[in-house]
Formats: sequence, C-alpha cells, structure tokens
Amino acid sequence: MNALLKEIRHNPLLWLLAFVPVVFVAQQLMHGQHTLLFVLSVLAIVPLAVLLSHATESVAAKTGDTVGGLLNATLGNLTELIIALAALRAGQYALVKASIAGAIVTNTLFMLGVSFLLGGLKHHVQEYNRGSARLQAGLLFVAVIALLVPSAVSEADLAAGSAFAGTLSVSLCLLLIAAYGLGLLFSLKTHRDFFGSAEHADAGEAPWPLGLALATLAGVTVLVALVSEIFVESVQHAAVAFGMTPAFVGFIVVAMVGGAAEMTSAISGARKNRLDLSVGIALGSAAQIALFVAPVLVLLSYVLGPTPMDLHFWPGAVVMMLIATMTVSLVTNSGRSAWFVGVLLLLVYLIFAMTLYLLPPRVQ
Amino acid sequence: MNALLKEIRHNPLLWLLAFVPVVFVAQQLMHGQHTLLFVLSVLAIVPLAVLLSHATESVAAKTGDTVGGLLNATLGNLTELIIALAALRAGQYALVKASIAGAIVTNTLFMLGVSFLLGGLKHHVQEYNRGSARLQAGLLFVAVIALLVPSAVSEADLAAGSAFAGTLSVSLCLLLIAAYGLGLLFSLKTHRDFFGSAEHADAGEAPWPLGLALATLAGVTVLVALVSEIFVESVQHAAVAFGMTPAFVGFIVVAMVGGAAEMTSAISGARKNRLDLSVGIALGSAAQIALFVAPVLVLLSYVLGPTPMDLHFWPGAVVMMLIATMTVSLVTNSGRSAWFVGVLLLLVYLIFAMTLYLLPPRVQ
Amino acid sequence: MNALLKEIRHNPLLWLLAFVPVVFVAQQLMHGQHTLLFVLSVLAIVPLAVLLSHATESVAAKTGDTVGGLLNATLGNLTELIIALAALRAGQYALVKASIAGAIVTNTLFMLGVSFLLGGLKHHVQEYNRGSARLQAGLLFVAVIALLVPSAVSEADLAAGSAFAGTLSVSLCLLLIAAYGLGLLFSLKTHRDFFGSAEHADAGEAPWPLGLALATLAGVTVLVALVSEIFVESVQHAAVAFGMTPAFVGFIVVAMVGGAAEMTSAISGARKNRLDLSVGIALGSAAQIALFVAPVLVLLSYVLGPTPMDLHFWPGAVVMMLIATMTVSLVTNSGRSAWFVGVLLLLVYLIFAMTLYLLPPRVQ
Repeated sequence: MNALLKEIRHNPLLWLLAFVPVVFVAQQLMHGQHTLLFVLSVLAIVPLAVLLSHATESVAAKTGDTVGGLLNATLGNLTELIIALAALRAGQYALVKASIAGAIVTNTLFMLGVSFLLGGLKHHVQEYNRGSARLQAGLLFVAVIALLVPSAVSEADLAAGSAFAGTLSVSLCLLLIAAYGLGLLFSLKTHRDFFGSAEHADAGEAPWPLGLALATLAGVTVLVALVSEIFVESVQHAAVAFGMTPAFVGFIVVAMVGGAAEMTSAISGARKNRLDLSVGIALGSAAQIALFVAPVLVLLSYVLGPTPMDLHFWPGAVVMMLIATMTVSLVTNSGRSAWFVGVLLLLVYLIFAMTLYLLPPRVQ
Repeated sequence: MNALLKEIRHNPLLWLLAFVPVVFVAQQLMHGQHTLLFVLSVLAIVPLAVLLSHATESVAAKTGDTVGGLLNATLGNLTELIIALAALRAGQYALVKASIAGAIVTNTLFMLGVSFLLGGLKHHVQEYNRGSARLQAGLLFVAVIALLVPSAVSEADLAAGSAFAGTLSVSLCLLLIAAYGLGLLFSLKTHRDFFGSAEHADAGEAPWPLGLALATLAGVTVLVALVSEIFVESVQHAAVAFGMTPAFVGFIVVAMVGGAAEMTSAISGARKNRLDLSVGIALGSAAQIALFVAPVLVLLSYVLGPTPMDLHFWPGAVVMMLIATMTVSLVTNSGRSAWFVGVLLLLVYLIFAMTLYLLPPRVQ
Repeated sequence: MNALLKEIRHNPLLWLLAFVPVVFVAQQLMHGQHTLLFVLSVLAIVPLAVLLSHATESVAAKTGDTVGGLLNATLGNLTELIIALAALRAGQYALVKASIAGAIVTNTLFMLGVSFLLGGLKHHVQEYNRGSARLQAGLLFVAVIALLVPSAVSEADLAAGSAFAGTLSVSLCLLLIAAYGLGLLFSLKTHRDFFGSAEHADAGEAPWPLGLALATLAGVTVLVALVSEIFVESVQHAAVAFGMTPAFVGFIVVAMVGGAAEMTSAISGARKNRLDLSVGIALGSAAQIALFVAPVLVLLSYVLGPTPMDLHFWPGAVVMMLIATMTVSLVTNSGRSAWFVGVLLLLVYLIFAMTLYLLPPRVQ
C-alpha cells in the first residue's frame, strides 16, 4: 500500500485519481448533466489507465519472463478494451469501430509523432534499431491489412450483402486471433531476442509487490469499467454540446483517453533517448488492437451486443488507417529521427482530426 | 531417356504423371463428369509443370548464359500462359484476368509465405541480400502499377467508356512488353551481376542432355495445352459442385496449379537457407506475369479470342494485387526473415482466399 | 551584364530567349492564332525559367547560407507558381489543380527517371546517400498525404458538401504552410547537415554579381508573368488543335514547361555521378509544391480568383500522385540505381501520360 501511495505522490498524473469518486457522486446527483459527466469521466479514466498499466507491469515483472510478457502483451490495451466493451454493450457499434480505427491511428501517428518531436527537441538526431522497427512496422502493416480486407473488398463491390459480411467477419476474427497467438509464441518464446529492447517495464521504477499489483489490477479494472459506462453514456451528448462529430469523438477523444497511459511511457522513453522503447510501444500497441482487440470485440458482440457486429469500417476510416500505417512504415524505415519527423507525423494526425471535426455529422 | 526416368523415380511429385493418360481416357468415356475431369486435370497438370520447368532449365543450362537466361525468363511462366491461353480461346476473359491477378498474388504472398515459414522453422533467422530484394521488389511494384493504371484511373471515373479502355490497353501492352525486353537486357546483359544469386537452376541436379530436354519441352508443352483445355472446360462446372465462386477458382485454384513447379523450387531453396533464390523466384515470376504474360494475352485476344480483351480488372482484384505487392515490398525490406513473417504473409493470403470463397458469385 | 551574356553564349538552351520578343509581337499581330502563340510561349518560358533559376542561385550564393537557402527553397518553383497564378486569375481552376498534381508527378517520376536513366547509361551503378533520400522521401510522402486528405476522405463519402470542403481547405492550407515554415527551420537551421549534399548551386559555375542577379530576378519574373498570360490563354485552344485533353495539358505540358530549369540541374547532376543532387532536387521540389505552392494558390484564390478554390482533386489525379510518391519511396529506398530503374520510373510516367492523352475530354 505504501508503494501505491509513494507512486501517487511521485506522479502528478495520478493526482487526477481524486476525480474517480467525484464522477460517481456526480452521476448520482446530476444525472442529466452529460457534458460535466463526460469531462469528469475523462479526468477519472486517465489516471486509472496509468495505474492499470503500472499494475500490469508489476505483475509481469514478478511472474517471470514468459507469463509476464504474455500479460503485458494481452493487457497492454486493457483500457481501450474496457471502454469499447461498454460501448459494445450499449449497442453503439459506430463508436466501437471508430475507437478501434482511432486507436490504431492515434497510437501510430500521434504517439510516435509526439515521441519523435519531444525526443528530437532534446537530442539532435536519435537512432533506433532499424531492423526491429522494420519488422514491427511490417507486422503492423499486415495486421491492419488483415483487418481492412473485408472493407476494402466489399467496398469495391457494393453488391456484397451483409450476410456475406457477417460470415466473413467471424471467420476473419478467428484467423486474426490465431495469428495473434502465433505472434505471442514468436515474440515471447522462439524469437524473444528480436524484441528485447521494446519491453514496457521501465528500469528506473521498482515493481510493486505481487499482492498489491494483483489487487490493484482487479480493483482498477472494475473502476475503469464503471467509469467507462458513464463515459460512453455521456460522450455522444457531450459531443453535440462541444460541436464535435460522432466520428471525431470515436476517433480522437476515445482513442486519446484509452491510450493515455502508453503515451506517457512512449514519450518518457523518447526523452531518455530510448526510441526503441517508444517505437516498440507505438507499433506493438497498434498491432495488438488490430490482431486482438478488434476480433475479440466482434466475437463478444455475439454474446453481449444487441446484434452481431461485423468488421466493416466506413471508407474514411479505412483510408486513415492505411495512410497511418504506410506513413509509419516509411518514416521508421530509416532508423533515425529528428524533431521535424515528429512534426510531420503530427501534421498528418492534425489533418485527420481537423477533417473529422469538420465532417458533416451524417457520415460515419 | 534414362535421365528422365531417373528424375521421375527420384521425385514423388512426378508419379502424378500417371494421371495424364487417365485424364484423356476419362474425357472420352465420361464427358459430362466435370468434377472428376477437373480433379484429374489438376493432378495431371502439376507434374507436367514440374517437368516443363526442369526441361526449360536443362535447355537453358546447355545453351549458354544469355540465351539460357532468356529462355528461363521467358518460359518461366509457360504453364500459366498455356492455361490462360486455353481460357482465352474459350472466351472466358473473367477467368483469364482472375488467373493473372491470382498468379501475382499467389507468387508473392503464398510462395514467399510458405518459403519464409518452412525455411524459418528450420533456421532461426534467415538473411538474404537486402539490396537485390529491394531492387526486385521495386521492379515488381512498378510492374504491377503499370498493369493497374487503366483500372485505377478509369475506376476513378466511371464515365470512361470501353473504346477508351481498348485503345489504352493495347498501347499499354506494347509499352509493358518493351519494358520487359529492356528488363531482360538489364538482367541478362548489362547488370547480370545484380541477379547472380537468383538463378532458377539448382546446383544439386544435373541438367539433362539437350536433345532430351528439347523433346521434353516440346512434348510436355503439347500435353499441358491439351490437359488445359479439359481443365478450363471443367473448372467452372466443378466450381459450382464444390461451392466455389468463379473469382475463387481463377484467383486461387488456377494460380496454384499454374505455379506449382516454381513453388517447389522456392520452398526447397528456403529449406536450404538460400532465401535469395526463393525471393528471386517469387518476385521475378510475379513481375514477369505483369510485364509479359498479361500484355501477351491481351494482344493474342485480338487473334485468338472472340472479342478483344482489355486490361480492366475488377476493383477487388486491383486492391488485392496492390496489397500483395506493398506487403511484399515492406516485408522484404529488412533483408531478414523468421517463421512468423511467413505466417503473416500466409495470413493475408488466407484472408484473400476466404473473402473470395465467401464472395457472392455475381461479383467479378 | 557580361556575366549574363557569357552565360547565354555558354548555354544553348538560353538561345531560346530570342522567342521572348517574338511571342509578344505575335500576340499583337496574330491574336487568334492560339496554336502558334502556345508553341511560342512554351519556347519563351523555358529559357526564362533557366535564367530565373540561375538568378535565384546567384542571389542565394551572395546572401549567406540561411537567407540564401531560404531564397532557393522559396523561389525554387517560382515558374510553376507564376504560371499557376495566371491560370488562377483566369479562373481556370481545373488547370491550376492539374498543374499542381502534374508538377508533383513530373518532378518525381519524370525528373528522377531521366536522371537515373541518363546517369545510369554513363555509370554502371550509382550510389547515393540512402539515409537522406529516405528522409526526403518520407517528407514528400507525408506532404502529399497532407495535400490529399480532403480528396481522399470526402471522396470516400460523396455526401460531404462543398461548404465543408471550403473550410477544410483553408484550415489545411494554413497547416501546410506552417509545416513548410518548420521544414525550412529544420533544413536550414537546426539540421542543415542532413541536407548538405542536396544544394542546388553547382560548384562549376561562378555566381553572378548581386546587382545583376537581383535585376535579372526582378526583370525575368515580370517577363515570365507576361508570357504566362499568353500561355494560359492559348493553352486550352491549342490543346484542342493538338487533340490533347485538358487533363493532359495541365498534368504534362504545364508541368514540363514549369519544371524545365530544375530538370536540367537534376540531369546534369546525374551525369556527373552526383545523384544526391538529383534526388534532392526532385524530391525537394515535389515536396515544396505540396507544402507551399498548393496552399498559397488556394489562399490567393480568395483574393485573386473569381471564386474560392478548394483542395479537392479529381480521383485520377489523387491516384497518380499517390502512386508517384509511393513508387519513388520504394525506388529510392535501396540507395543505389542503374539505368533500368530510370526506365521503370519513366514507364509509369509514360503510362500516366498515355492514359491522360486518351482520356475522354469530359473527365477532370
């Protein structure tokens, strides 16, 4: 418990934990105040996500390399998954899909862009392992392609009906999850030497005791789930109040909130001139969304959702995911970075955000 | 003749040659049995293709470097060409186009995927010449782009009529064949040092005497042509019986049958840790389909076909060819491979195959 | 003045300056002769562009590194800008957009293709700095993506109205110009060591005195502007006479005329085995069109044009710009070149040109 309190005192982001009780009280007292509830739930989710990330790493550090790596990999996007599950249960499939697409775009363009920019402002030129970056960018590319094939092919022919889309989506999800399992076997077992430098665990921080870590993991997961309910319920109403399109909310706001914890790790890695860490987190997390989170959500929609969800994205989302992946592939290709490379990635991200913000609301 | 018999005894795949007489007998006796004829013709074409490939290499080995290289390059996809010609004469243009697109996708994703997977299961990490792989991937990319421009541009504007498409296709074919000729000049004459390690001929096997090789080449070509007639006639009926869409048949079945011989060479190279050989065969063969086989078929359609064939592919095929080429470019970029890279390439291929299998039959 | 005359005597291309007075006389005497005026104005613009380029470099050489670099970068595409401004004032927005897209495609595919081909015919294999080529190709890719986002996203959804497109275009232009400014800060100030070898100034030629250079710059700019008026007025009529589509004129003819000066520099660099120079000019110039010339034209359309111009390109142009950028990224990836690489780039360019030439005139 002392470790937890020390952590909270140390990390200003965790002071936001004060908003967790506030949001529950506010939900009871001010039920219709969607905008307020939205802001409060965002402020509450961010520190919970950071805590979740630290607890996962602590459990991973205590349970040995393979099990730990497995935990880290599987729970790395737990916050995104919980938020998307809340939206799934509410039947808000457009929001679920937008948050999947947005997480991929945000993890690649924004997380990597900010890392390159802030790292580059401190270090003239930053080098990172070109070989493993290329391998990871290749994996990410294939993962995104796999996710997009139903949209691309059926987009190409409008006659493809929805029965076709449903069968295809389920078969595809099983394939993606199998590929994800093989990927874990690859990165944790047969070829762990390739991914050595991309571990999440930060050498500077001491891991928590196992009991504390497990209790935090369980408790915080429940808290994130409860706050996510409020978040999902209020987000669309708040969007209208802020003049944001639904596409913007899913793509940008949900993705930012869900990925906050990883972003802080990636940026801190970049400032310490450990770009391998930043690139590994950004590309690995995006690949995990495509290969694991997305298919799990589709399969769970058959159990939890009002109707089955397919893997068909709206064309604009397809274009953005493809562009984000290709941009990152090209940019990480040289194995070195400077601040302007970060500016360019952020430029593409800003353009996406701006386009989504200005998009007529009917779309998505 | 002894050499031929020894080869047959040595290579279990060639035992399938027994099906060659069987298919001709079956065609006479059971004319309406399309499914049976289809299976028999596939079983007969595969060993003939292997024989054709070995005969070509033997002639090439005997006729000196330049002429031999020319033969190897031009006849490398002879089986694909003969099958496509049979479909062309029958006026089945959708099948011809699907087999062109499928050959490019199969040669890149499947052939390379299986090579990387099987090679990687035997060797921890496999290195290959990054420079020449990149050069070849670049050539393949440009070749595929060249092939796709009419589809891409006219797709973009539906008003573009078919008169336009016809003129454009013919001009384009002449351009592609000229580029192919210059490519041969490049790879066989001015810069043969670049392509040194990508030769098809296998060091382990002794070439046949020239007379035997030439006779085999001539005889087997005739046999492949005859069996292809039966194959093309029966394939669409068999497709219905197996519940396969026409797109699946052209893309997957025809491409697999046509490329079987090269696949065995590529995979055997990968197992021997000679990935340069595998990459060279896969990328070179796909580039040859785009730059030589496809334009030759379009031009021959003016002579052999009922109406001229243009180079306009259906949107799904365009998307798949582009994705296959880009995936291979990104994946071969790092110059090293492990088994999971093969899994990812096969994943994309499987997704394509699954999509085509489930696609409503009206499409294509 | 002697320096100017010496330059003219030295460079046969400058003998075409004789056509400058001819075109003005012809405009007065033969007002309806559009075809003649078109040919004369092309013949007059080319040497003026060469002069403009040399004057800019001379001023740059005299004013010190940072200011000089700034001048070189900003005025590098001055001819393209002046021609596009003439078309903008005449309200010919399709021509303006086609010339933007065409300049990007021509600078990458044609300029680089001819450089690789002619350089490769003289030198067996040419090496260039892979690292900086990749960085520049990455920048170009992001710049083109940024330019294309409105088209790509709104293409994806036809419901997106034009009010949306207008607001988006203006916000985007401000973003692009800001990115361009940061890019200058990067390449001229914080990381000029990266771009060292890509300077335009040719070591062999002595720069002119500052007075002469400034006077030439001012005088020639006025002349180019005047000839551009005649060019823009006559080009569409001449297109009809030559059987060229409007798309072909904007994409190929205007882009070729506008980029003639840079092309001579890039090719001469390639012949001297200084491919870094050629690659730097080609990629840098294309990136500048996307990040600076295009947004400036959009913003100026609010002042100079009859109605505001947006950044929405026709689908064919989007496809061509994307293909050109991706092709160049893949091709420059290996850091080495031979003549056939140039052939392949030119092949893609020829295919584009052919498609545009044959395209039914209604399109664009």
